[in-house]
Amino acid sequence: MAVIDLNADLGESFGQWTLGDDDALLDLVTSANVACGFHAGDPTVLRHTCERAAERGVVIGAQVGYRDLAGFGRRFIDVEPSDLTNDVLYQIGALDAFARVAGTQVRYVKPHGALYNAIVHHEAQAAAVVEAVRSYDPSLPVMGMPGSVWLRLAEEAGLAVVPEAFADRAYTPEGTLVSRREPDAVLHDPDEVAERCVSLVTRGEVTAVDGSVVPVRAASLCVHGDSPGAVAMARAVRGRLERAGVTVAPFLGGPSR
Amino acid sequence: MAVIDLNADLGESFGQWTLGDDDALLDLVTSANVACGFHAGDPTVLRHTCERAAERGVVIGAQVGYRDLAGFGRRFIDVEPSDLTNDVLYQIGALDAFARVAGTQVRYVKPHGALYNAIVHHEAQAAAVVEAVRSYDPSLPVMGMPGSVWLRLAEEAGLAVVPEAFADRAYTPEGTLVSRREPDAVLHDPDEVAERCVSLVTRGEVTAVDGSVVPVRAASLCVHGDSPGAVAMARAVRGRLERAGVTVAPFLGGPSR
Amino acid sequence: MAVIDLNADLGESFGQWTLGDDDALLDLVTSANVACGFHAGDPTVLRHTCERAAERGVVIGAQVGYRDLAGFGRRFIDVEPSDLTNDVLYQIGALDAFARVAGTQVRYVKPHGALYNAIVHHEAQAAAVVEAVRSYDPSLPVMGMPGSVWLRLAEEAGLAVVPEAFADRAYTPEGTLVSRREPDAVLHDPDEVAERCVSLVTRGEVTAVDGSVVPVRAASLCVHGDSPGAVAMARAVRGRLERAGVTVAPFLGGPSR
Amino acid sequence: MAVIDLNADLGESFGQWTLGDDDALLDLVTSANVACGFHAGDPTVLRHTCERAAERGVVIGAQVGYRDLAGFGRRFIDVEPSDLTNDVLYQIGALDAFARVAGTQVRYVKPHGALYNAIVHHEAQAAAVVEAVRSYDPSLPVMGMPGSVWLRLAEEAGLAVVPEAFADRAYTPEGTLVSRREPDAVLHDPDEVAERCVSLVTRGEVTAVDGSVVPVRAASLCVHGDSPGAVAMARAVRGRLERAGVTVAPFLGGPSR
Repeated sequence: MAVIDLNADLGESFGQWTLGDDDALLDLVTSANVACGFHAGDPTVLRHTCERAAERGVVIGAQVGYRDLAGFGRRFIDVEPSDLTNDVLYQIGALDAFARVAGTQVRYVKPHGALYNAIVHHEAQAAAVVEAVRSYDPSLPVMGMPGSVWLRLAEEAGLAVVPEAFADRAYTPEGTLVSRREPDAVLHDPDEVAERCVSLVTRGEVTAVDGSVVPVRAASLCVHGDSPGAVAMARAVRGRLERAGVTVAPFLGGPSR
Repeated sequence: MAVIDLNADLGESFGQWTLGDDDALLDLVTSANVACGFHAGDPTVLRHTCERAAERGVVIGAQVGYRDLAGFGRRFIDVEPSDLTNDVLYQIGALDAFARVAGTQVRYVKPHGALYNAIVHHEAQAAAVVEAVRSYDPSLPVMGMPGSVWLRLAEEAGLAVVPEAFADRAYTPEGTLVSRREPDAVLHDPDEVAERCVSLVTRGEVTAVDGSVVPVRAASLCVHGDSPGAVAMARAVRGRLERAGVTVAPFLGGPSR
Repeated sequence: MAVIDLNADLGESFGQWTLGDDDALLDLVTSANVACGFHAGDPTVLRHTCERAAERGVVIGAQVGYRDLAGFGRRFIDVEPSDLTNDVLYQIGALDAFARVAGTQVRYVKPHGALYNAIVHHEAQAAAVVEAVRSYDPSLPVMGMPGSVWLRLAEEAGLAVVPEAFADRAYTPEGTLVSRREPDAVLHDPDEVAERCVSLVTRGEVTAVDGSVVPVRAASLCVHGDSPGAVAMARAVRGRLERAGVTVAPFLGGPSR
Repeated sequence: MAVIDLNADLGESFGQWTLGDDDALLDLVTSANVACGFHAGDPTVLRHTCERAAERGVVIGAQVGYRDLAGFGRRFIDVEPSDLTNDVLYQIGALDAFARVAGTQVRYVKPHGALYNAIVHHEAQAAAVVEAVRSYDPSLPVMGMPGSVWLRLAEEAGLAVVPEAFADRAYTPEGTLVSRREPDAVLHDPDEVAERCVSLVTRGEVTAVDGSVVPVRAASLCVHGDSPGAVAMARAVRGRLERAGVTVAPFLGGPSR
């Protein structure tokens, strides 16, 4: 029987500024990538997000990013690798305090935004993030793009890896994402997206932009939640998966150790 | 036989900016109040400070403060108590990541600057910091002024408290510090300061500004290190205490659990 | 014939985070209190807000505040007055760059949030903000609460003052605002608020919470815009004033010198 | 008779953290590149630096940089060009407030650190900074590396350009700087550096690392001041130039318009 994890970015509000419908998403996903305060999230947001995730049995992951509130972590920064390791350690430790107060702990790490994109190919930064996770807790899995330098180096360092697929993104025939600069990079029809997710999970394949069918290995599906439409799409994805007999559950098999 | 802890503020550099002679101080003190990034300290500074402290068996404490890099945590901020609790939790968790990577852990909490001063009397903020420590780890001691609301509420919450005295500060006949606004608030002669420390530790008393002798209960002596003269004073204090037969040792009896 | 200025807080978004419906408000108000980046607003937000305000002939004022993004400037900070003067100068200068690029300039100063509240009574901080405005441009008017230390010191320094009233706030019999901690501090019925505004403008009086009629001197009415309901209320206020024959116009008589 | 400007980075302290010996440097240079708060400098530092520069007739330039206090502006950030334009405008405007309060104004713009290096070749970011200067004040000169995209685009936009040479840096036979990653990139002998400066100014040439003599066009010489040795070197440079009959004076011919 097929099982899949659903993950989404959460805890991205800051001070007076609210972003995303966290409550709605927490009822739909099984893993929460919680921002840690460097590109989004403040301590009170982290606290609430961890508490609500824990109440619902949603697994908490550290959504680590560049130190760049003004850019929301979406701008590449050429940080020294040793500084990047420390930036990531700082973020994981800070979030873990709130996860523990909520009765659980940080259970995986998923980089955010420009850092996520950079370590698909940037060896030194990828190694720096791997080193942060390994030195914090070598039993902590990491989430990312299949085929990325990030997941390869993590595996070489002995970390468990959680490859993910993107529910609403178009794929190239090579199994990579179509760049957001292309017109058809993002899919908007909830039914189509939900149907693709069933294919991804039950057959391990997705139809690429040229019509070819490509294999995609994923232990988690990333859904977005920063707009009303996105929440509706996440709901459609989860419902369609369950009707197809797929079990939606945390990739770790449970919310706490 | 008399035993005393020596504590100092460390890890207060930030990015390109260096503050204090941490290496010199780490050879003199037994407890390091390490800044956590909200008023001073960046992740790489935290990393190095924790590693050097751990190498020397110096106990690591969390020097938590207001979120105010520009003001170095020295300006009172009227933070909501619930936000303050979360700000402190965030800082402790972040520092703990580096303490653990260095093979130890955060072993006490000492507020900094304006927060330290505020919670001598500000009930709501004192309770907020106590709540942060208690919810993070109720076995974590807290350090502060004897007679402060902070230590009283901490004790009521079941936390261990570490009252401290100040090596280079003048005391009132009531046993409180002479305000820094007064001309003679700070003592500058290393020999005089060292002699006072011996009195503080071996007889539990200090001569106040009016010449009266007042009892002062302290399990730790705070020394400063942000100038060459201050390091010399810390050295004088430690040397004089040891010559007087006082054992200078962490208040906890050892650097790791 | 009665004339009144309508002012509102604008440009309070930051990076990825949007706050308020600036476009809707800019069609309703005659003066825009534009955040300057210390408690809200980033350079791109400042740019766009100034451009849109200038296009519509809305006068640009500097909404200066404490350096506190995480607290949105709503927490009192015990800043040294000389530092506060410089913080305010910095903000005015930064905003003025964008106002000038948009073909106009900063034409008044209105403090925000906790700073606004503090300088109703805090002499040293009020004097510090006055000093910033005076040294930047002594022809720059300042906006604030009638009866505040802020307006009194500004007048004594030779600055033009613009006393304002609050469209949706209850008043005490003494002519001050009912504290937000009281249950009836804020009025929510657009028609009632609009009617009060007509009374404020045409008769210079408002009905206080005890039913008494109190005189209120105001050259500007502050409306809020950070919710759909608030925009509707601003629309109701402007419409009702115009139907009552009041001219809604910038307090300065025009958008540019 | 030969004339040359001497410029140095100033105002790079922040809050509690001091960097550089600004007072010593202000007695030696004729142009001060004053940090504007995004990578270094706080409002009070800007105020004092502008006042001291103005008192000595030292010309004030805006040392603009990436928004990155933790990295001191030394890490490339892939900012959107339109955001970069606004970040630079914000910084110039903020500094100009203090320059004007000090009785002068910002008289040129010199990017800092990673931004300086990026716009040697990065067309989009170079154009973004040019656009900021041009829209703020098209009469404002810009300073930078001869041969850089930055100066080329600035000239094309009609801005006056001030090419600079580096007193203590080794040059390649092509007239570019030897990378700091090379062992002999920086010269440390004050006499040698001073002698090179005379050659640069009086003959417009410098001896490259391979012994060849290369032409270098410079209207300003950059000296460093962030160490006691660097101040001594700046003093040696100025003294040697004056003994060689060179007039050390602001590139603009005077400190105020």
